[in-house]
Amino acid sequence: MIDSDVHIEVPNAQALFPYLADYWIEHITNTLFKGPTDTYYPPKSPVAARADSRRDDGAPPGSSLALLQEHVLGGQVDYAVLNCLYAIDSLHNPDAAVALASAVNDWQIAEWLDKEPRLRGSIVVPSQLPALAAREIDRVAGHPGFVQVLLPVRAQHPYGNRLFHPLWEAITRNDLVAGIHFGGAPGNPPTPSGWPSFFFEEYAGMAQVFATQLTSMVSEGVFDQFPTLRVALLEAGFTWLPAHMWRFDKEWRNLRRLVPWVKRPPSEYIREHVRLTVQPLDAPPDPKGLLQVVNQLGSEELLMYASDYPHQHAGDPESVLLRHLSPTVAQKIRSDNARAWYRL
Amino acid sequence: MIDSDVHIEVPNAQALFPYLADYWIEHITNTLFKGPTDTYYPPKSPVAARADSRRDDGAPPGSSLALLQEHVLGGQVDYAVLNCLYAIDSLHNPDAAVALASAVNDWQIAEWLDKEPRLRGSIVVPSQLPALAAREIDRVAGHPGFVQVLLPVRAQHPYGNRLFHPLWEAITRNDLVAGIHFGGAPGNPPTPSGWPSFFFEEYAGMAQVFATQLTSMVSEGVFDQFPTLRVALLEAGFTWLPAHMWRFDKEWRNLRRLVPWVKRPPSEYIREHVRLTVQPLDAPPDPKGLLQVVNQLGSEELLMYASDYPHQHAGDPESVLLRHLSPTVAQKIRSDNARAWYRL
Repeated sequence: MIDSDVHIEVPNAQALFPYLADYWIEHITNTLFKGPTDTYYPPKSPVAARADSRRDDGAPPGSSLALLQEHVLGGQVDYAVLNCLYAIDSLHNPDAAVALASAVNDWQIAEWLDKEPRLRGSIVVPSQLPALAAREIDRVAGHPGFVQVLLPVRAQHPYGNRLFHPLWEAITRNDLVAGIHFGGAPGNPPTPSGWPSFFFEEYAGMAQVFATQLTSMVSEGVFDQFPTLRVALLEAGFTWLPAHMWRFDKEWRNLRRLVPWVKRPPSEYIREHVRLTVQPLDAPPDPKGLLQVVNQLGSEELLMYASDYPHQHAGDPESVLLRHLSPTVAQKIRSDNARAWYRL
Repeated sequence: MIDSDVHIEVPNAQALFPYLADYWIEHITNTLFKGPTDTYYPPKSPVAARADSRRDDGAPPGSSLALLQEHVLGGQVDYAVLNCLYAIDSLHNPDAAVALASAVNDWQIAEWLDKEPRLRGSIVVPSQLPALAAREIDRVAGHPGFVQVLLPVRAQHPYGNRLFHPLWEAITRNDLVAGIHFGGAPGNPPTPSGWPSFFFEEYAGMAQVFATQLTSMVSEGVFDQFPTLRVALLEAGFTWLPAHMWRFDKEWRNLRRLVPWVKRPPSEYIREHVRLTVQPLDAPPDPKGLLQVVNQLGSEELLMYASDYPHQHAGDPESVLLRHLSPTVAQKIRSDNARAWYRL
């Protein structure tokens, strides 16, 4: 099995000191700046993480290699893809963003990837600064542990915008996956109608953010310009995708003269260039309805198993989804699809 | 039959002069201000309207009562609900917004509702100014032709925000429907990631704007506070709704302690308080898939027939949707659901 979404966490800024220049160590030590303070989830909530992932020493869940080896790699899992959600995108100081992203990547190499061969990593980048993000990708992509570049789905601009071309160039040049993940802290509201009042709205509404990013990337011709680009949508849910593809295809037939470089129905680009992890599962209550949606995806290659460790979920993909599918399809989701996407 | 979405258009600002104070007539005559210039669709596109709705005198499609009577009311349609998309929400001058909204409503009464008893109207309001919108609703709601208040789905704030309470109070006090329609010109971007580059993206992405507005209204407890509020989503499509309700219900179970006033699963509020028009139809290509989605709505009461006259569409609801449904359900969509919602 491949676990395509496992989280590790930088316990505190001091953990990055071995990987930071003296200037930044002094700055973090002597000023109020202690690295990003934004997080994509409420991190201290008792239900945000499995109880057994919390350590007595107060280190945050996802910060211990030994626990992760025991909890994630102990069973049938051959590889786990790590995603370190460190809100570089919230930093306005571009030099701080670059320095901290680089430190997180060197920390990942030294403390995770080089210590455990079954782990694969995602490069953390200043996604708000595409050219500098590209430079960081080129700096560390040579390490065989990195298979992906992590991008928060919330952003100041739609990812199809030409501002982001240096990012897609660097990702495809290094044969990596663009992992677009739930959350982000770009400063602009998470809805097209301004700021919601409650985190619940932001959480439930993240499916709409994923949908608009897909719309942008296909419409702007990102996949025409970067035909080898592979995207993984992480913690996106997937049951919203069939209806989105129907509407997208239909309006493309109607309005394609506005985007003549989009030569094929959008759903074809999506099926060719996009994969999605299955946890958390935004499923209907009945297995029959869930099977209908899986069929409506129109491809057996799109879904990838993920535990979302150490985050806690009421249902696990095995019991909610996989046991209802044919053994062939379940096997693809458990392993083959991620193995192909991440070249494992 | 009931046609729940028919468009009429103010041909030009001069048409409103009989309903405007001298101050505004002089202002429009002597300055560059000629009323709102934003529109929710590209109005001059040859495919934006049926060819036979264009008149030789250059008046815009939807501006002739005689043509509308011939095209919409000629067949089996007993009533048509009018929606006049006049971009009051784009005006920064609050007095201009109020004056022009009032003029459009008086023009609707004099030139449409009082001349044709089969027409029903939607009150145009300055939705960006909820208290002033409420005053305008109270001013004209006594006219028996008005059944709805028209609100653009794009807005500066989510409609669940407490800023909008005066609006929901006025709508329910007058026993009207809140008709939330495709489009809007609030000034902020139509995606949660900033401005898209092409109108195609905005058009395909409008489903996400509708979804976030529903999320906001349910999450903020609008339907708990205004239990008689009836909402119609106009030109929203509907195939995105089942997956949205699955995710919304699931995350409500997870995070409901953040919104304890939301006592029931969000899908129950939506089925009780929301209806949707069926044109344009964001349907899968196969009738079988479409029937699955209609079943997944979980209610036969949600959909209402609409032609979207004079806008032109490739498919009509009769051939794409209704003929595939049971006669009972088709009859509800053709007539009963709208008859109940609009009290016809």
